[in-house]
Amino acid sequence: MVSELKKVIIGKPLKSHELGEQKLIKTKALAILSSDALSSVAYGPEQILIVLATIGAAAYWYSIPIAIGVLVLLTALILSYRQIIFAYPKGGGAYVVSKNNLGINAGLIAGGSLLVDYILTVAVSVSAGTDAITSAFPALHSYNVAIAIFFVLFITVLNLRGVTESASILAYPVYLFVLAIFILIGVGIYKIVIGGVSPDLHTPIGTPVAGISLFILLRAFASGSSALTGVEAISNAIPNFKDPAPNNAAKTLLLMGVLLALLFSGIIYLAYYYGISPSEKVTVVSQIAESIFGRNFMYFFIQGTTALILILAANTGYSAFPLLAVNLAKDKFIPRMFTVRGDRLGYSNGIIILAAFSIILIIVFKGQTEHLIPLYAVGVFLPFTLSQTGMMVKWIREKPEGWMLKLITNTIGAFISFIVTIVFFLTKFPQVWPILIFLPIIIILFHQIRKHYESVGEQLRINPNEPVVPIEGNIIIVPVAGITQVVENSLNYAKSLSADHIIAVYVSFEREDEKRFEEKWKQWQPDIRLVTLHSYYRSIISPLTKFIDTVEHKASEANYQVTVVIPQFIPKKGWHHILHNQSGLLIHSYLLYRRKVIITTVPYRFKK
Amino acid sequence: MVSELKKVIIGKPLKSHELGEQKLIKTKALAILSSDALSSVAYGPEQILIVLATIGAAAYWYSIPIAIGVLVLLTALILSYRQIIFAYPKGGGAYVVSKNNLGINAGLIAGGSLLVDYILTVAVSVSAGTDAITSAFPALHSYNVAIAIFFVLFITVLNLRGVTESASILAYPVYLFVLAIFILIGVGIYKIVIGGVSPDLHTPIGTPVAGISLFILLRAFASGSSALTGVEAISNAIPNFKDPAPNNAAKTLLLMGVLLALLFSGIIYLAYYYGISPSEKVTVVSQIAESIFGRNFMYFFIQGTTALILILAANTGYSAFPLLAVNLAKDKFIPRMFTVRGDRLGYSNGIIILAAFSIILIIVFKGQTEHLIPLYAVGVFLPFTLSQTGMMVKWIREKPEGWMLKLITNTIGAFISFIVTIVFFLTKFPQVWPILIFLPIIIILFHQIRKHYESVGEQLRINPNEPVVPIEGNIIIVPVAGITQVVENSLNYAKSLSADHIIAVYVSFEREDEKRFEEKWKQWQPDIRLVTLHSYYRSIISPLTKFIDTVEHKASEANYQVTVVIPQFIPKKGWHHILHNQSGLLIHSYLLYRRKVIITTVPYRFKK
Repeated sequence: MVSELKKVIIGKPLKSHELGEQKLIKTKALAILSSDALSSVAYGPEQILIVLATIGAAAYWYSIPIAIGVLVLLTALILSYRQIIFAYPKGGGAYVVSKNNLGINAGLIAGGSLLVDYILTVAVSVSAGTDAITSAFPALHSYNVAIAIFFVLFITVLNLRGVTESASILAYPVYLFVLAIFILIGVGIYKIVIGGVSPDLHTPIGTPVAGISLFILLRAFASGSSALTGVEAISNAIPNFKDPAPNNAAKTLLLMGVLLALLFSGIIYLAYYYGISPSEKVTVVSQIAESIFGRNFMYFFIQGTTALILILAANTGYSAFPLLAVNLAKDKFIPRMFTVRGDRLGYSNGIIILAAFSIILIIVFKGQTEHLIPLYAVGVFLPFTLSQTGMMVKWIREKPEGWMLKLITNTIGAFISFIVTIVFFLTKFPQVWPILIFLPIIIILFHQIRKHYESVGEQLRINPNEPVVPIEGNIIIVPVAGITQVVENSLNYAKSLSADHIIAVYVSFEREDEKRFEEKWKQWQPDIRLVTLHSYYRSIISPLTKFIDTVEHKASEANYQVTVVIPQFIPKKGWHHILHNQSGLLIHSYLLYRRKVIITTVPYRFKK
Repeated sequence: MVSELKKVIIGKPLKSHELGEQKLIKTKALAILSSDALSSVAYGPEQILIVLATIGAAAYWYSIPIAIGVLVLLTALILSYRQIIFAYPKGGGAYVVSKNNLGINAGLIAGGSLLVDYILTVAVSVSAGTDAITSAFPALHSYNVAIAIFFVLFITVLNLRGVTESASILAYPVYLFVLAIFILIGVGIYKIVIGGVSPDLHTPIGTPVAGISLFILLRAFASGSSALTGVEAISNAIPNFKDPAPNNAAKTLLLMGVLLALLFSGIIYLAYYYGISPSEKVTVVSQIAESIFGRNFMYFFIQGTTALILILAANTGYSAFPLLAVNLAKDKFIPRMFTVRGDRLGYSNGIIILAAFSIILIIVFKGQTEHLIPLYAVGVFLPFTLSQTGMMVKWIREKPEGWMLKLITNTIGAFISFIVTIVFFLTKFPQVWPILIFLPIIIILFHQIRKHYESVGEQLRINPNEPVVPIEGNIIIVPVAGITQVVENSLNYAKSLSADHIIAVYVSFEREDEKRFEEKWKQWQPDIRLVTLHSYYRSIISPLTKFIDTVEHKASEANYQVTVVIPQFIPKKGWHHILHNQSGLLIHSYLLYRRKVIITTVPYRFKK
């Protein structure tokens, strides 16, 4: 029944060789891999203005040069990741690039912070989208957490159904959002061009502003750079693309960069020209839309698609997290289960873990995850810096054709990313410090896990110089609870194994009982030795274990193997389990984990 | 570690023969078995006045004749239960008496309703006591549920520690309460005698009252009878008494009856003479105490001991429920686990189940369990009626010496109990109807459980005319995941069992992998046949199960037994479990419940 339900929810299982059909064409890839990056134009420009607003409205013109800085960084990142895609056509991403060029620990810092970051992406973007919806319908406000969890589960199911299926569903909202913002920018600029907007709304570029400082400008720049989170997603996800994967991925990346640059600079420009001030209650995009359209259909279309894309931005996390997890798991830094493909060929364990952790975050922060944004941005720029530094090292080492230009590209990217990271630490330390705690913990854990896997591998390897101790004979112990068919069954099985000794063990709670049982036994099974143990504390396990220990000790001296044969009732109906004391299961799990004996379970099925 | 913690909380395990030392002397037995009955004087008189108040203050004098009726019923119950104690010296109670004299279903009605009733006792009395405490400290009011649950857990731990230990702790509050009420009654009567109380406070007995009806009087009587709940506890608990158990139990019962009669009539008389009117905010006992003492130390002493005894009344449930459960479990109507004594020789499963259900009730009703009182009273008077009718049948059947007097005693008891039950149904149907739903359900369940146990017993019995099918040979299947020490280990074990066939099974996910593995295998284990199965859906279990089915089918035709040998990693540290896919455990539980094969687990312990 559970498996039927599973089929309905995530679809029927796919065969392994159907994997090719689950790969992405460019337009779908753009939709599911860039929703995070594109959605950030909904809040990135606002972040810049919020910082500038601390100086005053006169400082808003600085958003234009800052935006140019962000665009330079974006260009550097796009070009750099394009180079990564061709250099690591099997899926690069910060983890692989840093590991290969800067060493294992740099890789783990990048991988660990991205792993946490994708969880933050899901929590933060779903919370933001939910906020946008419940702002429109205030009656729903008290259900924020429930609604956010619902969206996480919805996206989780989509992703469990498989990559192409989720792409088909998610493509519409993403393209609608892009369309909506383009219309907004187009109409806004048209109105400026025809002179419909008063130039008094903004201070001209270059106006001197009292109180401005490099610190403020850097802070505004760093805040604006949070719009660039998500650009690394494509380079992680190359294996999901249709062949030729690297070319398709590179083209998609370029397209995303162009879209992001256009949308971002359009919004910044309109906000500047229309003299928008950031407000706590209304977003900058909403203010621009209202100035241009008033509160008509277009306004709601823009607001609606914005809310939608914020929720779907979570999907980028779903595309990138499982693939990063596979890379880490293949290198044995996280549990092996992350490399297993689920029924629909997605890496379902990664998807489920991601969903679980982000739901926990949403619950713990009661849906108010905004103050996680700086943490999340640092978690992106740290790997950005590492991966581009890695590429610098690669170019210097390998010196391929035209390497100087490549090196310069990556050096600029690395430098700006590094500055952004430092600025975050300097200006937002109270929100950013947790990364200094959890990153070391995660990295230690990674190493511990790898150490365990390697030691296991070592122990499992067959060593021809170290011959296995031969088994000279078998002793079978059968715990018996009475003279019943179940016991007869188990004894017959034990006899059929031609063991050297068979010992039946009876644990009695009352002295009188013992003699009676021994006499009955002698009549019933005269050939099989019966040992009776008295239990003072009404426990079967402790006297039985003591006895098994004694036997095992003697047996091991002679290289004999001890097997405990445990009869196990299998009731006909599930609820019947509660009517039996389950001593069999109890003994089984106790002995399995604590004693050096082999345990055989003889099932006895009730017919009614 | 868990077992250490358990030792700290409930004490070190006792040996079975230390049971005698856990038995009760009379004074302690009185304390732990009569707290329920004695505590009811805190609310019983009030219940009578509440009903009379619907007519008017002039009707309060009726409380005196009604109280006499209650005392007659009490006398009848005490005498009747005294007879039961001697007739059923191994612990009678309504279940045993009804079952033996009226048949199995009457017994189950009595037993089932008492079982539910003890759960209600715990929930209702702990909630009432908590209310009394939080009325005194209103700041605690919002923690009612948490406080009530804390008390339930506290009493549970006391009972798990064992009967004598809980008696020692519980005796003080019970005797303090009795002392407090005696002082109250003594001083109250002294004031009346010295003329310190105006006789105008009450209407004289016999004053005609308009609007009084037999229905009202019966209702008041039934409400007052709720003070008698708990008198059956002693007859259930005879096995807990020191020898000679029946004599000690009978003396304790008599003492409890006398105390209950004195306290009950004292409170009723004072309430009448001092002209107390029931009020929603202040209890009748509190009003009496305030009239007599004012708000001085004695007042708070009385209130405090009352709150305490209301909580401890729950303990009667803890004494009676597990013993009743043992009786039902011995007759196979409820799961056998209720007959097992815990570490401290109490029937710990009964204690834990009682605690769990009453906590659920407290949570579901948010600590407001007052309206469960009528349900609870019906649940007591139904078994009262049945057990006394049972005793009537017994006397008529057996006709021992002086049987007429005994018959008359029980007939009066049965008759009044029956009237009380009917009056509850007539006057409080909206609160009482659930018993008509859950009693039939419980009784059907009882029969189902018994049917299951009997059918199991039937199936387990050795039938000499039906010889067991002999095992002609053994086939051993070893699922292998690679060429490792674990596999070598399992194969060696399989070989040592001198089976007729050993088949290694390898499940591959990729076609290329198969050939390579087969070749390696031929070099490594040329003697053992390897079967390679291809899994299209990346599942090990489904191809393996299909293969096992085929083998099992052929094997069973030749009376061969199939054994599946499953290697199982045992990691050194608990957290390592998550790093392994646990396929072994998965296969084990899947095959155990679904297939007719024997499963052998070969543990492989990692050394680091």
